[in-house]
Amino acid sequence: MAADNYTPESVADAVRQYDGVRRKQAIGTLVRALHFDNLDVIASYGEDAAVIQNGRTALLLAADGIWNKLMEVDPYWAGYCAILVNVHDIAAMGGRPVAMVDVLSASNDQLMSEVSRGMRDAATAFDVPVVGGHLHPDAPYNVIDVSILGVAELENIIYSSTAEPGNAIIAAIDLNGRIHPSAPMNWDSVTMKTPELLRTQISVMKDLGEHHHLTAGKDISNPGVIGTLGMLIEASGVGAVVDLTAIPCPDLDALGLTFEQWVRMYPGMGFIMTADQSQVDTVCKKFRAAGMAAQVIGTVNTTRQLTLVKGDRQTVLFNFCAEGITNI
Amino acid sequence: MAADNYTPESVADAVRQYDGVRRKQAIGTLVRALHFDNLDVIASYGEDAAVIQNGRTALLLAADGIWNKLMEVDPYWAGYCAILVNVHDIAAMGGRPVAMVDVLSASNDQLMSEVSRGMRDAATAFDVPVVGGHLHPDAPYNVIDVSILGVAELENIIYSSTAEPGNAIIAAIDLNGRIHPSAPMNWDSVTMKTPELLRTQISVMKDLGEHHHLTAGKDISNPGVIGTLGMLIEASGVGAVVDLTAIPCPDLDALGLTFEQWVRMYPGMGFIMTADQSQVDTVCKKFRAAGMAAQVIGTVNTTRQLTLVKGDRQTVLFNFCAEGITNI
Repeated sequence: MAADNYTPESVADAVRQYDGVRRKQAIGTLVRALHFDNLDVIASYGEDAAVIQNGRTALLLAADGIWNKLMEVDPYWAGYCAILVNVHDIAAMGGRPVAMVDVLSASNDQLMSEVSRGMRDAATAFDVPVVGGHLHPDAPYNVIDVSILGVAELENIIYSSTAEPGNAIIAAIDLNGRIHPSAPMNWDSVTMKTPELLRTQISVMKDLGEHHHLTAGKDISNPGVIGTLGMLIEASGVGAVVDLTAIPCPDLDALGLTFEQWVRMYPGMGFIMTADQSQVDTVCKKFRAAGMAAQVIGTVNTTRQLTLVKGDRQTVLFNFCAEGITNI
Repeated sequence: MAADNYTPESVADAVRQYDGVRRKQAIGTLVRALHFDNLDVIASYGEDAAVIQNGRTALLLAADGIWNKLMEVDPYWAGYCAILVNVHDIAAMGGRPVAMVDVLSASNDQLMSEVSRGMRDAATAFDVPVVGGHLHPDAPYNVIDVSILGVAELENIIYSSTAEPGNAIIAAIDLNGRIHPSAPMNWDSVTMKTPELLRTQISVMKDLGEHHHLTAGKDISNPGVIGTLGMLIEASGVGAVVDLTAIPCPDLDALGLTFEQWVRMYPGMGFIMTADQSQVDTVCKKFRAAGMAAQVIGTVNTTRQLTLVKGDRQTVLFNFCAEGITNI
């Protein structure tokens, strides 16, 4: 079956039923249990990183864990990803990553060594040091959790919750990569790149924040490009129409991937953003200069629904009036 | 057997063989794998929190996980402790805790809810918000990892690695507590206290830092009072003699605890510090004013050994020339 033989319905089903999207549903319950007001905290749940006011600058704080399945299959890549996703959390907010800490639980020395090697390679490539943490050397499971500290000017921060009706939706993804050999749902566009290129790509968001080119943005994570957009649209209290044919893709037929698989993949280096229509060209040009594909894939509206379109067919993927992704 | 029927050798054996101490040995290997130089990072491994220069202030970053055994036995207390140990990591450095993030992996909703309740109660008591994180709602294990951001003035920070020969060693512990009903190695001196008292106790370290009363300090964590002192002595490249009879204790006979058990317990609210002899009275008074027992328990020397003394008997617990606790 050729990869372009998809329909809005087949894509909607694939995204809706995807574990990476469905497992976000429990977040709302947890947030309601933990939340309490604090004057210094400007933004927290629903953002890639929390924003804490510290004088005129902002401190950014985020944490991410890696799926246990990945730890078992490929501890090196799990360690690499633990760093990668955290660096992206800060970058997506327009911040500068400063330092990370980790909590590693490992059942044996071989795995601990592989995870550490992956973490070190990623930390070195992105030049963000791991400065401490905690080690369970004798755990009955294998878990790597990392958190990251970043800094930004308060006025330059890019939030997930500030998309506005009428904005263009832009997806930027590095298509020069490979299906990761141990993780078929991971698009690895990073391990074969030079540190210089990786740092250039990751710094595009900081540049966009400083120039106020975006209205909102997120890094594309486990829920994939459409699922992550759904979280941004939900957090912003708006709706969106997405033209599926505009989503940047590598040569799917050559890779043996369906479109439904591609849109659910974790793309290694990817961002989903909204911007005033007047900013679209500038935003896309900056990503393309860093070797990434960047395209307008849709428009923000007021419907509180996420609608997928292909040609003259369309379907509603999420109706946020009825049910959210994270329910925060 | 009465609790005071211990010898230096029985205590040395108990501490040396204790999991909470032994499991620190793998840290060195991990640190050597992860470390790389970064100009902004003033201190990292071996400290309770990493110290990152940010202009004239310092950002403190730490992470801690909770033993899986505790998650299984008492998820509420595990959640409470996840916050408690992180708040202590910042307090021990003389810092102000600002915000935390968590990564929670839970195999079922009941456990998730109990862990969250423990986290919320501790976060509320210490007034440090949990501002984000990551949730694995469908994990095959139960893990709570928390990290914390703090701030301090660079010149007021209390390090673990700066004890000096001739210094007094001071232990401060809140003895008003109970053996935790689900965790016999935990001294719970916190869940029955008012937030006001907890905040007063935790802020003593910040006050001591601001007034430069200490030369070094750590919060007493899983390795217990002597094991934690060992880590401080190792990190400082010095030695110490500890008078076991001076270690603050509750009524051990009434509690049915041996002394060997007591010194290995996690005390909930406790700090081990070094100070110039001239500062001892001031330091002890400040802790006592906050309802904690505080006493000089020994002296720092140049031997690179940790020696335990009781009356006319003594034994060497650790010889750091031969083998370290963390091997950083």
